[in-house]
Amino acid sequence: MSDDIILLAHGSGGGLSQELIRRAFVSHFDNQILSRLEDASVFAAEGSRLAFTTDSYVVKPLFFPGGDIGRLSVCGTVNDLSMMGATPLYLSAGFILEEGLRLDDLERIVMSMSKAAAEAGVKIICGDTKVVEKKAADGIFINTAGIGFVRDDLHISIVNSRPSDVVLVSGTIGDHGITIMSQREGLQFQSDMTSDAAPLNHLVRDMLGATNQIHTMRDPTRGGLATTLNEIAVSSGVGVEVEEDQIPVLEGVAWACEMLGLDPLYLANEGKLVATVAEADSDRVLAAMRGNVLGARATVIGRITEDHPGRVVIKNSFGAKRILSVLAGDQFPRIC
Amino acid sequence: MSDDIILLAHGSGGGLSQELIRRAFVSHFDNQILSRLEDASVFAAEGSRLAFTTDSYVVKPLFFPGGDIGRLSVCGTVNDLSMMGATPLYLSAGFILEEGLRLDDLERIVMSMSKAAAEAGVKIICGDTKVVEKKAADGIFINTAGIGFVRDDLHISIVNSRPSDVVLVSGTIGDHGITIMSQREGLQFQSDMTSDAAPLNHLVRDMLGATNQIHTMRDPTRGGLATTLNEIAVSSGVGVEVEEDQIPVLEGVAWACEMLGLDPLYLANEGKLVATVAEADSDRVLAAMRGNVLGARATVIGRITEDHPGRVVIKNSFGAKRILSVLAGDQFPRIC
Repeated sequence: MSDDIILLAHGSGGGLSQELIRRAFVSHFDNQILSRLEDASVFAAEGSRLAFTTDSYVVKPLFFPGGDIGRLSVCGTVNDLSMMGATPLYLSAGFILEEGLRLDDLERIVMSMSKAAAEAGVKIICGDTKVVEKKAADGIFINTAGIGFVRDDLHISIVNSRPSDVVLVSGTIGDHGITIMSQREGLQFQSDMTSDAAPLNHLVRDMLGATNQIHTMRDPTRGGLATTLNEIAVSSGVGVEVEEDQIPVLEGVAWACEMLGLDPLYLANEGKLVATVAEADSDRVLAAMRGNVLGARATVIGRITEDHPGRVVIKNSFGAKRILSVLAGDQFPRIC
Repeated sequence: MSDDIILLAHGSGGGLSQELIRRAFVSHFDNQILSRLEDASVFAAEGSRLAFTTDSYVVKPLFFPGGDIGRLSVCGTVNDLSMMGATPLYLSAGFILEEGLRLDDLERIVMSMSKAAAEAGVKIICGDTKVVEKKAADGIFINTAGIGFVRDDLHISIVNSRPSDVVLVSGTIGDHGITIMSQREGLQFQSDMTSDAAPLNHLVRDMLGATNQIHTMRDPTRGGLATTLNEIAVSSGVGVEVEEDQIPVLEGVAWACEMLGLDPLYLANEGKLVATVAEADSDRVLAAMRGNVLGARATVIGRITEDHPGRVVIKNSFGAKRILSVLAGDQFPRIC
């Protein structure tokens, strides 16, 4: 019975994850900032606005095309800060190591973190290392927390999307998730699939150079684009309408998804963002995104609507509409 | 060969831990703030001084007399901030859960975190949950990171102890370590041994109310008092001289240590601190400590000396002196 013990699905990023977060965490850590469930928590401190976020990384395998657990652990936290419009500054790094881990693997991971931090222009300024016995962990788990500063004129939030806003996505969807799943299944595809893991803070800087009227930003990690769009619909109390044909998916990713029976809309991304933007500013934001290498394939995928608040509707090329729901099951454990 | 793989001893807090930190982390994350290896990293941001720290908790068993992994995870991070003189404000919480963990155990742990946070007066404002398969973790691992503010007039650092400083300890030594070891060995002692896990920020506030001339503060967790004193000696380039008779150890703890062949000076503490204070202010600081329930048994245990820089010398009741070295082996895995 799912009420009694933790299931893999509790970590999937879908419905059960949200239930667990509300039941076990939000209710007991009762405070306004946490309850907002943003990608990063923003608070005022001595006259400045700061953002604070944390993520643990348990991805399996540790190394994969386009990245490794180290790169992921830096990009993921940089991106969570960036989604609140924060400029990421400092990261912490906590390591849980399994006895027997190869030191050269650890060093390779740490060097990858260092490189990703340099790309993002952040510094890793504090850390911790614990070691547990064989079989008490799986190689290495990494936690990073991050601190950033937020401009006073920004009010980006999961609750701020408004009818008539334009929904933008920064590039192709599903690359990270399908890469990890293929590696794990031991599948070799002809196309070169690689994780999109990348720090998005410079892309966000360019977007915020074009306008401060970005209403919501979120990186569609666990649960994928479909889950993120549902979070926007529910939290902002609006409808979301997207066109399936407009959502960019690499041909190889689409093909691999078909082979594995997966839907790219539910696959994790680690270097993409979704933004809702006031209609008047959306062209400028889109142009700014396309001017950055990480947003070269940015595109409009839909609209925020007054209709069907709390729901995401997807329209296919024949004009048929269906409801796009959140991920329910435990399809993808340890994807990040 | 210890060069090739991670050993349990790499997590002990002793010599091998320090070697790993310098080789794998400090060298690659090369930056001035991290290299200082303080309990928390202090940096200037928009005119304020902030402290930032992180710790992962893997203690086994999850529940023990006087606390649990949840209480530990809040107290440990609050204390690391406090050791830099920071006022702890906000914490993050990252959970790695093993499939099959009982939900009521999780809730008990989370409620304990919530209670400890209320005691300390801090808020847990962001979090993350990952789930891994059975046997890929051991029940639950928790990471907390913390942010605090540091007064401009404080300059507390592991490098700032000076000859003639007085060495203070806030209470009895070894309580946490012996409690965990006894539980793990399944030993029942007649005396009621309990972990000392407690948030030290209010004690530190009282101390800083007495003087700002506290030179070094550190909580002797992994590696115990002996390791902390050695860190002070090496980092400040001074000698440390302590009197064995002056170091408070509960009778039950001393007796259990004898039974188990352990030295309380190397056992972890989770609610104690060591401070070095300018001689002229030490009486006032001691009085302030004794005025707080968590410092009721505070006492002077020794002096900082010009002699034998980098070394800790301990004098027994007969006046005989010996060198107190750092913990070398892997005596105590998963103590916090």
